[in-house]
Amino acid sequence: MGIETVITELTSFLGQRLSRSKSDLELHGQSETHFPLMPPDAVAYPENTQEVAEIVRICARNQVPVIGWGVGTSLEGQAQAPSGGICVDFVRMNRIRKIRQADMDVTVEPGVTREALNEELRATGLFFPVDPGANATLGGMASTRASGTTTVRYGGMRQNVLALEVVTADGEIIRTGSRARKTSSGYDLTGLFIGAEGTLGLITELTLRLQGQPEAVASAVCAFPSIKHAVAAVIDTIQMGIPMARIELVDVATVQAVNAYSGSELAEAPHLLLEFHGSDSGVAEQSQSFGEIAESHGGAGFDWATKAEDRNALWAMRHNAYHAIKATRPGAQVLVTDVCVPISKLADVIEETLADIENAGIYAPLVGHVGDGNFHTSMMWEKGDDDQLATIEAASHRMVERALANGGTATGEHGVGLGKKRYMDREHGPGWAVMGAIKQALDPDNIMNPGKLVPPRN
Amino acid sequence: MGIETVITELTSFLGQRLSRSKSDLELHGQSETHFPLMPPDAVAYPENTQEVAEIVRICARNQVPVIGWGVGTSLEGQAQAPSGGICVDFVRMNRIRKIRQADMDVTVEPGVTREALNEELRATGLFFPVDPGANATLGGMASTRASGTTTVRYGGMRQNVLALEVVTADGEIIRTGSRARKTSSGYDLTGLFIGAEGTLGLITELTLRLQGQPEAVASAVCAFPSIKHAVAAVIDTIQMGIPMARIELVDVATVQAVNAYSGSELAEAPHLLLEFHGSDSGVAEQSQSFGEIAESHGGAGFDWATKAEDRNALWAMRHNAYHAIKATRPGAQVLVTDVCVPISKLADVIEETLADIENAGIYAPLVGHVGDGNFHTSMMWEKGDDDQLATIEAASHRMVERALANGGTATGEHGVGLGKKRYMDREHGPGWAVMGAIKQALDPDNIMNPGKLVPPRN
Repeated sequence: MGIETVITELTSFLGQRLSRSKSDLELHGQSETHFPLMPPDAVAYPENTQEVAEIVRICARNQVPVIGWGVGTSLEGQAQAPSGGICVDFVRMNRIRKIRQADMDVTVEPGVTREALNEELRATGLFFPVDPGANATLGGMASTRASGTTTVRYGGMRQNVLALEVVTADGEIIRTGSRARKTSSGYDLTGLFIGAEGTLGLITELTLRLQGQPEAVASAVCAFPSIKHAVAAVIDTIQMGIPMARIELVDVATVQAVNAYSGSELAEAPHLLLEFHGSDSGVAEQSQSFGEIAESHGGAGFDWATKAEDRNALWAMRHNAYHAIKATRPGAQVLVTDVCVPISKLADVIEETLADIENAGIYAPLVGHVGDGNFHTSMMWEKGDDDQLATIEAASHRMVERALANGGTATGEHGVGLGKKRYMDREHGPGWAVMGAIKQALDPDNIMNPGKLVPPRN
Repeated sequence: MGIETVITELTSFLGQRLSRSKSDLELHGQSETHFPLMPPDAVAYPENTQEVAEIVRICARNQVPVIGWGVGTSLEGQAQAPSGGICVDFVRMNRIRKIRQADMDVTVEPGVTREALNEELRATGLFFPVDPGANATLGGMASTRASGTTTVRYGGMRQNVLALEVVTADGEIIRTGSRARKTSSGYDLTGLFIGAEGTLGLITELTLRLQGQPEAVASAVCAFPSIKHAVAAVIDTIQMGIPMARIELVDVATVQAVNAYSGSELAEAPHLLLEFHGSDSGVAEQSQSFGEIAESHGGAGFDWATKAEDRNALWAMRHNAYHAIKATRPGAQVLVTDVCVPISKLADVIEETLADIENAGIYAPLVGHVGDGNFHTSMMWEKGDDDQLATIEAASHRMVERALANGGTATGEHGVGLGKKRYMDREHGPGWAVMGAIKQALDPDNIMNPGKLVPPRN
């Protein structure tokens, strides 16, 4: 094991920016999940691409693992270090390099968070639309192929990254894509690194597509008699071509939690929360069209708001849903699982999942980006109650199996990490071995985030 | 060379569906370009995936090249057979397997053409939006990462393919993606095979996203004093978030050719042709907003039409532009080159290209999908005039160099094939070797469309 050599060499050029403090190792060995601590041997804080390349070259020579780190908001243990090694924390690479208004693109370092970017863009009339909820870094969002509430309109990271700079497993710096809006020039390496979770290289720069801030924004909320009615309304809305910017489902348990947390008085029924972007008359028309669709599916209490304060209250409620849910069981732990299915299967899969959860005696509010067929459960248990955890893990497993059996995917937006690796074979069949062959070709010594995503080496 | 063994084995199970007729070999050795004939040794006509897999396995055992064939409309010699081998023509795999209205997706065999698909979809209220002009097969469009006039609104093939079935170089059948609208589950193999031009495997099935047919469609045409004025109007239109379905530039030479061919009376100036999709009031508003933008940039003669016959006349004119251009020089040959640049560079790059073309004494009308920064020239020469061909090739080369020097790509939508391979190193640098490593991993014997796209083997 060359870890001591690596630490000596890294210290010689990073100095204080290589940390072995216990608190740093623990912080970078944690995750948002229930996995045990898996700390790296050291944490490096590079300030530029050349330093990242040098870190990787040193690790490559000594066959020591390299794991990237944004702000640690990934949900499947993607950035934990099960084999130790060097964690590369991008917090010091957080510069916005260039905003190009005419081209509606921006070049950023990987440690920039999406909120910091949008704050910087505010005065330009542009914004970056991908919103996974957490204030993640853009490098992390690309690496996990994040998406979120606005994906139904603007796409996720895969659709919104034009170009990357990547340090590969041998410490070489490559560029993928360009600032041209489209290309047919060679293999889509940009797409390959997006969602690779750092197993093929470290992203050191991103060029992102931006959107114009809409002239008008309206929000709406509507209660439905059942999940089936709500999803039927979503399907009609999409078929009609109404360009919703967000269309979110919250189930009864989430509504109860939100009412208790925010003091809102939503009816205890499944709700859809929507946002419309466009011109003044455009959002009015969209809202009205949706209102008619909702009514035809038993929607009640439909209300829409263009005033910023009303909209903000509505979306604060949605964004706080996770906190509201946690507040119902102070001190409890949460296992968050996400799956995604064809939208025609969505109502059945959600209803079966809710019935299963109820039968198992689990408390697990459900929210969904229903325009994409994607939903999450937050299954809760008391810390230390291993039986309850086992019950929850079994229910989470059945939820994934149910999604796969219905033509869906084991994860719509949270990624594979450690938590979903067991489903890769089932979901991809021989395609998983193709992923393994690509990994073997680009990282023959298996130093880039080893133990994640691809099949184990023989 | 195991070609005779391969032909014997293939004949034994394909019978008459393995062809060695001279006309078949010549047809499948041609391209839309000026490249010389490069025929395969035989043409196979499989009827299902199992047959494709068996063809590839036989070729793999004998290290004989395998080249896919749709309808031969690719523009860079992608389907020619410079090393001979077996051409796999997908004409008999042209079934539409399943249209799913609620999910707005469709599963097709690779030999289905886009017009055949849209004909079949007409009664469903759905359509497949990608329109590269030619009535190409969907397998071919995926393999070349095609896009076209509607990409500015709906995206190209990369954005509109959900899942693939692929026969890999060892004859294994894999599935990539799923019918879920989004996923974070593993490497994006779907994206990797899209644009790989058959060098990593043969696509045997595609699941595509569909769009709802818009309630209303409007078209518009507008003359501008210069390319710069027209492009400035496009930039403002995009910044405003006006969701044009198409926004096409035609230069003066194209207008002249179209007037002569179609009997239209457009002013001899650069024009933008636009299409708007939406609700009745939405397209009216979009058209009006664009009209105001156009006027502020010197646009003249702005006119918009919602009547189907007027719209069809306008777009027939655009679709016939290539024929109109060819009709100006009966019997002449055409070299079509496409590049794509950041939109802020587009006006300069186009004007420099037109000046260069004029200086070189070349006749080369120019059209562009300007919302994406993508444009094409059709450089014409008299057959047999090798000096003129050399002049044209040099100008085409400078056009690509100019695009690359301006942060663009060597091809926005036509692909690499044989024609653009020389630019891969320049455009991708060490990223090209990464493409080579992927090819080596997935096709170690280099039997899948050899000689295209990736670096030569050592």
